[in-house]
Amino acid sequence: MSIVVQKFGGTSVADAEKIARAARRAIKAKLDGHQVVMVVSAMGKTTDHLVALAREVNPSPPKREMDMLLTTGEQVSISLMAMAISAAGHEAISFTGGQVGMITDASHTKARIRSIDAARIHHELEAGHVVIVAGFQGVTEQGAITTLGRGGSDTTAVALAAALKAGMCEVYTDVDGVYTTDPRIVPEARKMNFISYDEMLELASLGAGVMHSRSIEFGKKYNVPIHVRSSLTDTDGTMIVAETPDMEQIVVRGVTLKRDLARVLLMGVPNKPGVAGDIFARVAEHNIVVDDIIQNIYERGGLANIGFTTTLGDLDEAKGICEKLAREIGIRSVEVDSNVAKVSIVGIGMKAHTGVASRMFKALADGQVNIQNISTSEIVISCIVDQNDGEKALRLLHNAFELDRG
Amino acid sequence: MSIVVQKFGGTSVADAEKIARAARRAIKAKLDGHQVVMVVSAMGKTTDHLVALAREVNPSPPKREMDMLLTTGEQVSISLMAMAISAAGHEAISFTGGQVGMITDASHTKARIRSIDAARIHHELEAGHVVIVAGFQGVTEQGAITTLGRGGSDTTAVALAAALKAGMCEVYTDVDGVYTTDPRIVPEARKMNFISYDEMLELASLGAGVMHSRSIEFGKKYNVPIHVRSSLTDTDGTMIVAETPDMEQIVVRGVTLKRDLARVLLMGVPNKPGVAGDIFARVAEHNIVVDDIIQNIYERGGLANIGFTTTLGDLDEAKGICEKLAREIGIRSVEVDSNVAKVSIVGIGMKAHTGVASRMFKALADGQVNIQNISTSEIVISCIVDQNDGEKALRLLHNAFELDRG
Repeated sequence: MSIVVQKFGGTSVADAEKIARAARRAIKAKLDGHQVVMVVSAMGKTTDHLVALAREVNPSPPKREMDMLLTTGEQVSISLMAMAISAAGHEAISFTGGQVGMITDASHTKARIRSIDAARIHHELEAGHVVIVAGFQGVTEQGAITTLGRGGSDTTAVALAAALKAGMCEVYTDVDGVYTTDPRIVPEARKMNFISYDEMLELASLGAGVMHSRSIEFGKKYNVPIHVRSSLTDTDGTMIVAETPDMEQIVVRGVTLKRDLARVLLMGVPNKPGVAGDIFARVAEHNIVVDDIIQNIYERGGLANIGFTTTLGDLDEAKGICEKLAREIGIRSVEVDSNVAKVSIVGIGMKAHTGVASRMFKALADGQVNIQNISTSEIVISCIVDQNDGEKALRLLHNAFELDRG
Repeated sequence: MSIVVQKFGGTSVADAEKIARAARRAIKAKLDGHQVVMVVSAMGKTTDHLVALAREVNPSPPKREMDMLLTTGEQVSISLMAMAISAAGHEAISFTGGQVGMITDASHTKARIRSIDAARIHHELEAGHVVIVAGFQGVTEQGAITTLGRGGSDTTAVALAAALKAGMCEVYTDVDGVYTTDPRIVPEARKMNFISYDEMLELASLGAGVMHSRSIEFGKKYNVPIHVRSSLTDTDGTMIVAETPDMEQIVVRGVTLKRDLARVLLMGVPNKPGVAGDIFARVAEHNIVVDDIIQNIYERGGLANIGFTTTLGDLDEAKGICEKLAREIGIRSVEVDSNVAKVSIVGIGMKAHTGVASRMFKALADGQVNIQNISTSEIVISCIVDQNDGEKALRLLHNAFELDRG
């Protein structure tokens, strides 16, 4: 009998009716002959409410106590889910992270899973119970309650699926799968049937979320098939699976647009060893997120231009840091552009195909989109463009790589 | 260094301001040289809110899952309390019942404490931390989360005080102590400085609450001094302590009035062995609470009158049961009176003094209050009176036993 792990996010358990709907889905899987483990998040806005309550009491609450507080949200959800399954005439049992031996390190608010005691869950599954586990939480070896940070419930679900050797980890969400691009911008965007872990990881880091990258890394490491699907319909969603040679036939799997970026350029930087290191060390010290580093463009006379893109929110601070540094080490000028975006193409097929980059650049050029900067990795090519050209660029690329065709 | 356990009920932690006030009280005790353990209840109406949520999902939720749900209320309070103490510059650490080894039996929703692991708390106290423990909750040996039922947080506090050999268990509440009687009815009512466990137990069972009887039984068993006091003032409250010979000098410690009672009388009951047993077994089967049993009054011809008092809310059902029984075993008639109350006097001094009962009856008679029924135990005498005479009877007795004098 195969085990299926079903994960329901906050919007999928936001009220009694939605909880009942999720319960019916678990019962259906059980009646279909599976052993069912559910992982649930806190209901709707519960976590926001608890965070607000904490701030009222203490503007910078100790992290251990934040974990103690926030984990109550999932504990409420699991007990209500067990009640809902019981109300429908089936047997269920709920467990906190600690109760199923979800052991983590002691990094409160962003703990990492160390081990899971699968025996307890197997025992309950064999007794015919639907097992409901609180997402997002664990305990240290010493018994302190921890949380896994952003995307924590996804991580719980995939880690449990790995530990239980489940046949499938189903992630129920408010979209019906992973799309070739954002359908709000490109109406021809198509839901993918399959995507590889690596492609999904790149999409996640390019902001085309659905799932947090940590959970996908877990899935990749333990080869857990993940099915991202809608909690509202029975339609198949997108399977996230290990790469197969077949999958390389598709050159580009998806295209993304990252908006609200800004570019900082340091012009006329002395071309001496260690200068670039100094610049980025200084930026990192202030927790400025560097999106892409812009390659050096050597000018005559030994001066270089070095820059980076960052989020618009970090721009003012980044500019200040760079201007201070410019005075200290004699950089000619600091130029900023608060009006840039990044379009990217993602696909493991790039590894096996040539001419992908030139096809991308030609598509943008044909559409009169000026490329300001290029960065690449093994399965991604990104171009910085003017913010106003962003959506057009996305449509051009979606079309050029024929992503609207099945 | 002596340990003090401070218990704060739901109204004393109802919002951020009240939590901060409770935190200051714990800090003061620490600065006064004590090691401080706090036991806190769920904030204000949290438990009611959670119960309503459960009923939405399942009209009769499994008890195990109710415990899973309700214990989140206290977990929220302990984390916020730790944050509040931290905000005031002191070190605190919060623990769930399970984390401090509050081991109970598996009777979900009304579990009984089996053992407490004091070592963990001592360790934190010695490190200089204020230790905050979730009231009302424990875990079974197998790790299932349980609750202690009504008055559970009081029980947690007194049990912890016993396990830690604390010098004092302070119970903070919205009244400033235990009174000789209800001050809303008798303005001369006086706060007592001392009361014995046994007297307090009788007051609790007569509805003059403040604390639940289970916690007082715990205090009595382990001889934990309990200080019931106001969370709003610094005035001393009432100490609940072991009986001393001195305390017997006071004949009557307090007087109580229990309203909204009803009386059911079965007239002309065949005087055969086992009939009384049948009557009360039938009543108990329907979960009718019998307040007092009214003694048999034998008539000529071998017939008896048997009756009992119950709450007004149970009267209709009780009447129906008794009328059915009357037809079955040939009882002449069932008479009900929905308009009775019970006045009681409580005091360990009764054990050493004579004439207490007659003094009570004379006081009522002098005040034109008719006594319908009398029941007694070692330290209590109760009279059933007409509901309309209840408050007058209470004033007469408070005056007759000079309870307004210090």
